[in-house]
Amino acid sequence: MTDELNEPELAETGGKARLYVTDDLGEDVAVTLDEGQTHYLLHVLRAKAGSLVSLFNGRDGEWLGEITAAAKRGVTATCLKQTQAQHGTPDIWLAFAPVKKTPSDYLVQKAAELGVSVLQPVFTRRTIVARINEERMAANAIEAAEQSGRLSVPEIRTAVSLEKLLVSWPTDRRLLFCDEGGDAKAMTQAARESRGGPTAILTGPEGGFDPAERAALRALPFVLPVTLGPRILRADTAALAALAIWQAVAGDFS
Amino acid sequence: MTDELNEPELAETGGKARLYVTDDLGEDVAVTLDEGQTHYLLHVLRAKAGSLVSLFNGRDGEWLGEITAAAKRGVTATCLKQTQAQHGTPDIWLAFAPVKKTPSDYLVQKAAELGVSVLQPVFTRRTIVARINEERMAANAIEAAEQSGRLSVPEIRTAVSLEKLLVSWPTDRRLLFCDEGGDAKAMTQAARESRGGPTAILTGPEGGFDPAERAALRALPFVLPVTLGPRILRADTAALAALAIWQAVAGDFS
Repeated sequence: MTDELNEPELAETGGKARLYVTDDLGEDVAVTLDEGQTHYLLHVLRAKAGSLVSLFNGRDGEWLGEITAAAKRGVTATCLKQTQAQHGTPDIWLAFAPVKKTPSDYLVQKAAELGVSVLQPVFTRRTIVARINEERMAANAIEAAEQSGRLSVPEIRTAVSLEKLLVSWPTDRRLLFCDEGGDAKAMTQAARESRGGPTAILTGPEGGFDPAERAALRALPFVLPVTLGPRILRADTAALAALAIWQAVAGDFS
Repeated sequence: MTDELNEPELAETGGKARLYVTDDLGEDVAVTLDEGQTHYLLHVLRAKAGSLVSLFNGRDGEWLGEITAAAKRGVTATCLKQTQAQHGTPDIWLAFAPVKKTPSDYLVQKAAELGVSVLQPVFTRRTIVARINEERMAANAIEAAEQSGRLSVPEIRTAVSLEKLLVSWPTDRRLLFCDEGGDAKAMTQAARESRGGPTAILTGPEGGFDPAERAALRALPFVLPVTLGPRILRADTAALAALAIWQAVAGDFS
C-alpha cells in the first residue's frame, strides 16, 4: 500500500503537471521548481523547454506556466496567464488522534481532497501512536492538493495534547466532537448549526476517548457532540465521513 | 499497508471476539467455527473452554456464545442468549469501478463500516484494473462487519460491465451517479429524493466515465447525476464520501 498510495503520480491535468510552489506567482514571473518537481518533470514526464505546467501557491490563484529552462539542477517555469483566481474555501479544521502510518497517510490524503483547511494531530489518552511524521503528512497533503485541483494546501499543525488544544482553543470556533454517546446530535444537524462560522471536527483514536476526556469535552461551550450512526467506525473512517458530511451540508459540496 | 490494513485484528468487544458465522444461531445451538476463527481464538486470544464470544450470521441477531470445545480442528461455541435482535439496515448499494489492490481493500472495508448492503464491482471503459479478487473482498467485508458491530455482511456481487449492469438494472432502484457534470444535483438533495426507496451509488474509475457512458447514464430514467463538490476526488474517496453523505441524509446516521 505504501507504494500504491505514494507512487509518483503527481497531478496531471490533460497531461500537464499541476504543481504547488511557495514563491509568488504573477504575469511573467519565473519560478524555480524544487528537486522532486524537477526530477518528476524531466524524468517522468520528459518535459522540455516549452512544455506547459500548472502552478498554484495558495495565494495567487492558478497559473499556466511554460518551462523556460529545463536545467537538471532546477527547472524554471514562467507564468503565462492566470487560469483561476484565488478563492476562499470553507474554514473547516480536522483535529484527529493520529493512527498508524498507512491509515494516517490515507487520512491526510482524503481529508485534503475533501477540502480540509487545517489538519491538527491531537494526542489523547488512548492514542497509541507516539510519533508523528509531519514532513510525510505535509508531502501527502501537497500531493493530494495538486491532484484534486485545490488552490491551497491544508496546513499541518504541530501535534499537541488534547488538554493543550482545548485550553488554547479559539472559542468562536465550533468543535464538532465525534462521540459515541447516545445523546449526541446527528452530524447533519450539527453541520447546519455550524454553517457559516469557523468549525472544526474532532475524532479520537481506535479505542475512542476515555470517560474523563468525554466529560471534559462535553462541558465546554464551543463543543457540539455528534454521532456518525449506529456502527463502530475506525478512526480514519470517522474522520472522513464527518468531513464529507460537513462539506455536503455546510461546506462547498453544493 | 497491506500488513497494517489486514493484520489479524478480528473484532473484540470488551476483549471478546465478535465473529460472523453462516450457521443458524439460537438458544443452546452449538456452532463449529472455521479454521481462521479457530486459529485466532486459540493462538491470538488464547481462548479456552468457558471463554465468551459474540456471534452473528445476518439473520438471527447477535448472540453471546461460550466456547464449549476448544479443539484445534475447530472450536465449538454454544449460544447462551441473544444480545441483539436482527434489524433491518438501509437498502443502499455501492456500484464502483474497481481500483488498485490496496485502495480496493480500503474501499470495501470503509463501505462495510458505513453500512453498505451490496458491493457491485463494475467494469467501465476507463477501468484499468482487469481482475477482481472476490474472495479478498469478501474477507475484508466480513472483517469490517465483525469490527463495526454490524448484524450482517455486505454482499459482494460478481463484477459486470457497466452495459450489462444497466440493462438488467432493477428500475425501481434509484442510481445516484457520481458525475463531474456541472448540472448534477448536490448529493444531499439527491439523497433526500431517494430517501425511503431502494438506492445505489455509482462511482467511476480514476479517469472518470467516458462521454458515451455519461450520456447513456443520463438518459436512463432511474439515474440521478450527483456532484461531490468542486475538487477532483480519487475514486475511493468519492465512493466513501457519497456513501457517508447518503447515510447521514437518508440512511441510519441520525
